[in-house]
Amino acid sequence: MAGGLSAATPESEIRMALADQEMAWNQGDLVKFVAYYSPESVFIGKEVARGNEQVLARYRKSYPTAEKRGTLHYSDLEVKLLGAEYASVIGRFHLTRTAAGGGDASGIFTLLFRKTAGGWKIILDHTS
Amino acid sequence: MAGGLSAATPESEIRMALADQEMAWNQGDLVKFVAYYSPESVFIGKEVARGNEQVLARYRKSYPTAEKRGTLHYSDLEVKLLGAEYASVIGRFHLTRTAAGGGDASGIFTLLFRKTAGGWKIILDHTS
Repeated sequence: MAGGLSAATPESEIRMALADQEMAWNQGDLVKFVAYYSPESVFIGKEVARGNEQVLARYRKSYPTAEKRGTLHYSDLEVKLLGAEYASVIGRFHLTRTAAGGGDASGIFTLLFRKTAGGWKIILDHTS
Repeated sequence: MAGGLSAATPESEIRMALADQEMAWNQGDLVKFVAYYSPESVFIGKEVARGNEQVLARYRKSYPTAEKRGTLHYSDLEVKLLGAEYASVIGRFHLTRTAAGGGDASGIFTLLFRKTAGGWKIILDHTS
């Protein structure tokens, strides 16, 4: 509205966090990407990683080069608030990569976010 | 304690729900098994199913006989309360089956439970 301020809602804050995370990935900034994971986070992929240090180590190992990282895009995001402090997100990821980078990849994820003093952080990520 | 009553905690209620679900599976009672899913639930496996009707249809299709269902066992359950109304669970499932039933199978799951008037119900299941 003219003269109005649009306040960020929890859902828009979470969507902005994911958009920022996507951008960090595409800039090759894995440290910033992983900053959206809480120190208490659990990542469930092919293996289980606990805490953002392990999550970062896993990403660095699996995606060491720009070619392997490719271009990340999230889609079909469904954000559901669980009270004031938690939220779940269902979505899909798409990696566009050269054949040498491993080829295109995609999958589905569920995230659990917790609102902290430092903003919304991922405390659980199950990707398959 | 002598003379004391041990009140059920949210965590023990959720663990009991999962134990009961396991037992229902092993008795071949898929309707009771799926009764722990909320009508609003989303199941993410190889496909995505929405609502307990779709979840039941999926289980009936994938596990039509006692031999295909085998014996279900959950392990490594980690229950985390998310405020008063929600909780997450990480765990592993193990199906013990004959070769004709498809052989043994196992995987990891994350569940999101919501406390309802009818008890704790699964609103999100991601199994891989």
